[in-house]
Amino acid sequence: MENQFAGHAGDDIRAQVLTAALPYIQKYTGKVVVVKYGGNAMVNDGLKEAVMSDIVLLSLVGIRVVLVHGGGPEISAMLGKLGIESRFVDGLRYTDAQTAQVVQMVLAGKTNKDLVSLIGVLGGRALGICGIDGGMIKARKLEGKNDLGYVGDITGIDTRLIEHALSDGYIPVVATVGTGEDGTVYNINADTAATEIAAALKAENIITLTDIRGLMRDVSDDSTLIPAVKTCELDALIAGGIISGGMIPKVRGLEKALESGVKKAVMIDGRVPHSILIEMFSNEGIGTMLTL
Amino acid sequence: MENQFAGHAGDDIRAQVLTAALPYIQKYTGKVVVVKYGGNAMVNDGLKEAVMSDIVLLSLVGIRVVLVHGGGPEISAMLGKLGIESRFVDGLRYTDAQTAQVVQMVLAGKTNKDLVSLIGVLGGRALGICGIDGGMIKARKLEGKNDLGYVGDITGIDTRLIEHALSDGYIPVVATVGTGEDGTVYNINADTAATEIAAALKAENIITLTDIRGLMRDVSDDSTLIPAVKTCELDALIAGGIISGGMIPKVRGLEKALESGVKKAVMIDGRVPHSILIEMFSNEGIGTMLTL
Amino acid sequence: MENQFAGHAGDDIRAQVLTAALPYIQKYTGKVVVVKYGGNAMVNDGLKEAVMSDIVLLSLVGIRVVLVHGGGPEISAMLGKLGIESRFVDGLRYTDAQTAQVVQMVLAGKTNKDLVSLIGVLGGRALGICGIDGGMIKARKLEGKNDLGYVGDITGIDTRLIEHALSDGYIPVVATVGTGEDGTVYNINADTAATEIAAALKAENIITLTDIRGLMRDVSDDSTLIPAVKTCELDALIAGGIISGGMIPKVRGLEKALESGVKKAVMIDGRVPHSILIEMFSNEGIGTMLTL
Amino acid sequence: MENQFAGHAGDDIRAQVLTAALPYIQKYTGKVVVVKYGGNAMVNDGLKEAVMSDIVLLSLVGIRVVLVHGGGPEISAMLGKLGIESRFVDGLRYTDAQTAQVVQMVLAGKTNKDLVSLIGVLGGRALGICGIDGGMIKARKLEGKNDLGYVGDITGIDTRLIEHALSDGYIPVVATVGTGEDGTVYNINADTAATEIAAALKAENIITLTDIRGLMRDVSDDSTLIPAVKTCELDALIAGGIISGGMIPKVRGLEKALESGVKKAVMIDGRVPHSILIEMFSNEGIGTMLTL
Amino acid sequence: MENQFAGHAGDDIRAQVLTAALPYIQKYTGKVVVVKYGGNAMVNDGLKEAVMSDIVLLSLVGIRVVLVHGGGPEISAMLGKLGIESRFVDGLRYTDAQTAQVVQMVLAGKTNKDLVSLIGVLGGRALGICGIDGGMIKARKLEGKNDLGYVGDITGIDTRLIEHALSDGYIPVVATVGTGEDGTVYNINADTAATEIAAALKAENIITLTDIRGLMRDVSDDSTLIPAVKTCELDALIAGGIISGGMIPKVRGLEKALESGVKKAVMIDGRVPHSILIEMFSNEGIGTMLTL
Amino acid sequence: MENQFAGHAGDDIRAQVLTAALPYIQKYTGKVVVVKYGGNAMVNDGLKEAVMSDIVLLSLVGIRVVLVHGGGPEISAMLGKLGIESRFVDGLRYTDAQTAQVVQMVLAGKTNKDLVSLIGVLGGRALGICGIDGGMIKARKLEGKNDLGYVGDITGIDTRLIEHALSDGYIPVVATVGTGEDGTVYNINADTAATEIAAALKAENIITLTDIRGLMRDVSDDSTLIPAVKTCELDALIAGGIISGGMIPKVRGLEKALESGVKKAVMIDGRVPHSILIEMFSNEGIGTMLTL
Repeated sequence: MENQFAGHAGDDIRAQVLTAALPYIQKYTGKVVVVKYGGNAMVNDGLKEAVMSDIVLLSLVGIRVVLVHGGGPEISAMLGKLGIESRFVDGLRYTDAQTAQVVQMVLAGKTNKDLVSLIGVLGGRALGICGIDGGMIKARKLEGKNDLGYVGDITGIDTRLIEHALSDGYIPVVATVGTGEDGTVYNINADTAATEIAAALKAENIITLTDIRGLMRDVSDDSTLIPAVKTCELDALIAGGIISGGMIPKVRGLEKALESGVKKAVMIDGRVPHSILIEMFSNEGIGTMLTL
Repeated sequence: MENQFAGHAGDDIRAQVLTAALPYIQKYTGKVVVVKYGGNAMVNDGLKEAVMSDIVLLSLVGIRVVLVHGGGPEISAMLGKLGIESRFVDGLRYTDAQTAQVVQMVLAGKTNKDLVSLIGVLGGRALGICGIDGGMIKARKLEGKNDLGYVGDITGIDTRLIEHALSDGYIPVVATVGTGEDGTVYNINADTAATEIAAALKAENIITLTDIRGLMRDVSDDSTLIPAVKTCELDALIAGGIISGGMIPKVRGLEKALESGVKKAVMIDGRVPHSILIEMFSNEGIGTMLTL
Repeated sequence: MENQFAGHAGDDIRAQVLTAALPYIQKYTGKVVVVKYGGNAMVNDGLKEAVMSDIVLLSLVGIRVVLVHGGGPEISAMLGKLGIESRFVDGLRYTDAQTAQVVQMVLAGKTNKDLVSLIGVLGGRALGICGIDGGMIKARKLEGKNDLGYVGDITGIDTRLIEHALSDGYIPVVATVGTGEDGTVYNINADTAATEIAAALKAENIITLTDIRGLMRDVSDDSTLIPAVKTCELDALIAGGIISGGMIPKVRGLEKALESGVKKAVMIDGRVPHSILIEMFSNEGIGTMLTL
Repeated sequence: MENQFAGHAGDDIRAQVLTAALPYIQKYTGKVVVVKYGGNAMVNDGLKEAVMSDIVLLSLVGIRVVLVHGGGPEISAMLGKLGIESRFVDGLRYTDAQTAQVVQMVLAGKTNKDLVSLIGVLGGRALGICGIDGGMIKARKLEGKNDLGYVGDITGIDTRLIEHALSDGYIPVVATVGTGEDGTVYNINADTAATEIAAALKAENIITLTDIRGLMRDVSDDSTLIPAVKTCELDALIAGGIISGGMIPKVRGLEKALESGVKKAVMIDGRVPHSILIEMFSNEGIGTMLTL
Repeated sequence: MENQFAGHAGDDIRAQVLTAALPYIQKYTGKVVVVKYGGNAMVNDGLKEAVMSDIVLLSLVGIRVVLVHGGGPEISAMLGKLGIESRFVDGLRYTDAQTAQVVQMVLAGKTNKDLVSLIGVLGGRALGICGIDGGMIKARKLEGKNDLGYVGDITGIDTRLIEHALSDGYIPVVATVGTGEDGTVYNINADTAATEIAAALKAENIITLTDIRGLMRDVSDDSTLIPAVKTCELDALIAGGIISGGMIPKVRGLEKALESGVKKAVMIDGRVPHSILIEMFSNEGIGTMLTL
Repeated sequence: MENQFAGHAGDDIRAQVLTAALPYIQKYTGKVVVVKYGGNAMVNDGLKEAVMSDIVLLSLVGIRVVLVHGGGPEISAMLGKLGIESRFVDGLRYTDAQTAQVVQMVLAGKTNKDLVSLIGVLGGRALGICGIDGGMIKARKLEGKNDLGYVGDITGIDTRLIEHALSDGYIPVVATVGTGEDGTVYNINADTAATEIAAALKAENIITLTDIRGLMRDVSDDSTLIPAVKTCELDALIAGGIISGGMIPKVRGLEKALESGVKKAVMIDGRVPHSILIEMFSNEGIGTMLTL
């Protein structure tokens, strides 16, 4: 990396950033941090490399980071090639038996292993797993007002595989398919899986990469970013329309994780390079932090 | 299971089988056994369940079993659906860039996870991994007289991930794709990968499931089965045409594993239900055993 | 062992026996099983070797087996040679001071060490101990309507010596003499000692070798064997005369072991070779199983 | 214990004895000391209790003491009662098959367990074992100019059982019978067994209790005791008749133990109460010390 | 050490002292014993060496001994050299800011390290620490009817440093200065610190070296020594004037230690050489023992 | 700390500093770094706090930092108060017996404990030790052309105490006095002690805080700083006068540490706040780095 701030002034800045960062590094060392990865940060190759590079750096300083990813665009592309129609109901993919097989194959065999490979090239050691491995994610058919086919509702997380992977020094990269008692494979929403996994692991922190700066009073005005929210304020924010649409289930998932023992939940802007490092290791943080 | 041999006679038989089996069980407990799984035993659902059931039983009595699988038919089927032509050169699949991606996706995302799921339904705990995970299988382009595209030649096996999985109580199920230093994905022959993995693990035993009874002097006459062969006899058997065609590289791979410290290599008939149990836990064994 | 059932049929049988046995082997591995050894199986050299061979096989597959033995015939023979009269009161040996010394000497010095030696010849590693060692069996004079001299009533079992022996990889072979607080040596009934030891160890299983097939509705008709009994049924069976005489205290002892945490108590026919293996590792079992 | 030296003078003496003793206690803590016990100290009940009391005290302060005992008088008495003639050849008991059984029974079942019981009464925890247990003492027929029947020549000591016993906190009490490969039981000389065990354990110290004060230039004059001898001086002492008769093999056995790594060998007077404590924990020691 | 009691009589005495001492040695091995060291035993070089020699012997036999020392005379001498007036209020040194610095410097840098050095010369391994190290002694200004300046009242003992030192094999030598939350250094009374440390460590025993024989009904008559006192008798003894003046807070401190879990508290005569050994390792003990 | 660089630009800088720093943090985690502390950074209270703050931050991220300090000014001040003349020979303090006592007292009791206290106030846990503790620094009289009295030449470093302190989670703060075999206390040069300690610990890094920017070709021109030097260039730099005076022994000491296995030696400007953090955790480093 080229040195953009040389000399005594640069030394001051470095000292200041490091003095601020070291206590956070110490605070997180040995702790579990779950990163939910999706959106723009997943389709832009430069951002993808920046995120994976941050993940590797976190693991280098002893943080037990778990990467949970989605993969909608790749699934849609493969369904297209196979001539299978993508159908969405209430914003969720309707998953027939044939689609469920494609979801498993693409998520666990392509998206997941590609991330594992990239982490390897960047100097990390990752293990790509899905909810089938070690019976990690148990699920049943999600019941709702509309039938979604093989979309699953999580009934249990067996965290042993993730914990083993972390203890053995791997970065677990998790594709979110799950299985029923009889072996039926279900397609699981990645946000939901990430919050359930964070809750089951009693993670220190769950970080969700999104395509916006965070919660904002006025979406068009960055200066209206809400840096911190208490869960008790959520009802009012939803009632006031500040939180709406697809953001509601995301926020409710994070709330549930906090209630299960996760210490902190943050939504950060996946479009900002290295936003994970800035969030975790500086006094200011970025995005919106949710706490009990 | 229904009792087909009741009363005192049955007791005699049970006592005899058990008295014979227990020392073998004790011999293998804690030892690594690599099973190469392919052929008919992989496409027939009844045989597939019998093999996975044997794998689960081996792990129940403390044997550290590693399952290495192929997946040709499923790959061919998917390539067909995607309208990509399957082309074979010298009996090996020519693998262009697009095909390599499909191989990775199908082997690691479908075949592999389906086996993991079946083991789970049968009461075992498996972890599906491929050569990308933890940088397990390092490869480079296989050089030969004909170009095979992204077919890989193994340059190194990092056994740590398999060893961690075994220590943590999982049955590692291995899909044989590998990566180059730059992250390029290669398609790896499963027989070759199984013997290299067995050698790297210094396995006690490598068992290859095939579609014949073993080495036979006359393929059409089961009574000509050769139960045991020394590696020093291989040259003569090949010269005499007893070993020929695709069997030659299989046998040479097993020979190499033995030379690297594996104690015993056997080829058994995957079409016989529970042939793995019979091979490992009875005085007679079945198939052909190869030793130094 | 000669192969009495060759070819495909033999393979089927082997697969069937092994498929049935392996889950039991896994179930018992690492668990404590107490075997009470006495009767015909102790005086017939062929049966003695078959029993000791089973004991060695159990220990080979990781079962923590404890052998508790009697020794009446050898004691009587030695008393005879020494010109000391054997006298029985209520079916128990009247034990004067001189007899108590002979009991200790023969049980702990001859019967016990001979079994240890035989286990060694069969490939096992045994440690012969008696209730004096490590203060294992504490006793006081048994009070009853008739004076029995130095016959002891167990007041406490210190299981540490047995647990140390098991952890160190030995098969503990236990001669049942005990000591009072002042060092007085008492003669202890082996059935009683075995059930108290099983209870104190919270054994998985206690197996009593007897000279009959098990509990039978008609002693002269093998087909009337009662394969399983609940302890709540014992009163009725005693009242009905099905259980009578010396069998009553044996059964009550097993009942007490079950109430103290032992999972299963079985009485099997010591005259059937390898009856221990058949009982433990097949679906049918043999003899009579007693559970809560 | 009554206080025979009260007041300031007593304090001086206590301080002096303790100041002298503590470094020795520290020196021996955690070290293995083999005590060969026989002779008068074994037949006199008061001396027996004093010796066992010393053994218990040694173990209390963390010394890993191993007690190896003989038992000639009790064996002779039992043979007498059984009407079997005791015959001695070259000072060693001629042991026919019947005698060998009695030796095993009396040594391992009576003498040994009586010592274990006495140690228990005095507050220690002992484990009585013989060479049969755990295959500890392997032997073959002793060949010499005269046939001695089942008198054994030690071919190997497997120290694991003793080491396990010591690690588990027991005082191993060893009866010296051994077994051949086929399970034949041999009568082993206790002095020889003690030196071989000390050598195999690389003991810090071997202490032999005898019925004389030590090596003396004039047996009738206590003032001629030789407090320390180098092994290089033994030839001259034997040539000069100072060491003669049964003392020669004892001394040669100790010499062999020293050559195998035992640090110090001492012969002390078993007739002096607490001679073990005085030897080990005072500046002067008693008896004769043999070193390389 | 010269041998003042040779021959058989000497052997008897040694055996008697050792037989009495060994159970005490065993009792204290691995236990924590706090020794409060001050008074004449600290200024007389011969006594100082005898005490340090006892401390080394205790640690040799595995006792976890903690030495807490005062240092009044050396502090007074240094204050004198620096021309700072020593002023006492109610028997405690008035400590202004300048004096507090001298107290820290002399206690922690001179008295403490000189003791560490002497222990090293005598063969022990000591670690000199003060209440500042590892934040061991937390204190605040002692409030009372008269202002004492920087004299501290202990608010907490963090025992980890002492426990680490003991586990690592060092004899902790403790200088009694402490710090407030803001780093202010306080002068702490050594008797108080010793009892608080003993209480926090749940020590087995606290031994206070004083300049008298113990509690005496008539200070001028040694025969009126009270060898043992229960804490419930203290009120009466104080009311009766038997315990008076500076002895009252000492005794109350020991009482508090007992109430916090210390098993035994003794005051012994530091003027008697090796009084610590005699107290701990003989039946009689010396001085006065205080128990609940 | 106030935020001097807010907004997106600040985020960029933070990301850049952190991305650069994390690999260094990972590199040093668990490694031993010795910091030699003296000069201006020791007498200026602001710099002292910045240095101690850096030390605490290093320990927070798992670096095993050892602080070795001098203390000349405080020693001189105390000698002055006590009316003892400070005399220097060849730049080293002539140390008579009286001076040696003052050196020990001030260094170990005042300077050392004051640093420990400051580290404690800043949130770290330190243990103040000197070469007397645990016999850490063994020394003899330094022989040279002029007599220096009790100035010591190090004969051995026993690193166990430092290693124990590090393992137990303390920052060892080392005052450089040492002792001879007879307990004589010697005054040891802190630069020499630091390099010997670093060598004995096979430290990863030794950092010497000085009052200049590093080695400079022209002392008056900061731009002539030599950022890196190989030890093979030292002779030429000394011959050329670039390294001269008191800098020669400092540089030679660092050279010796490198030859003993220390990986890197750096001299940095103690007058720059947080120079330790900048040196260790940025790409540029500061000062002069010396390597083999």
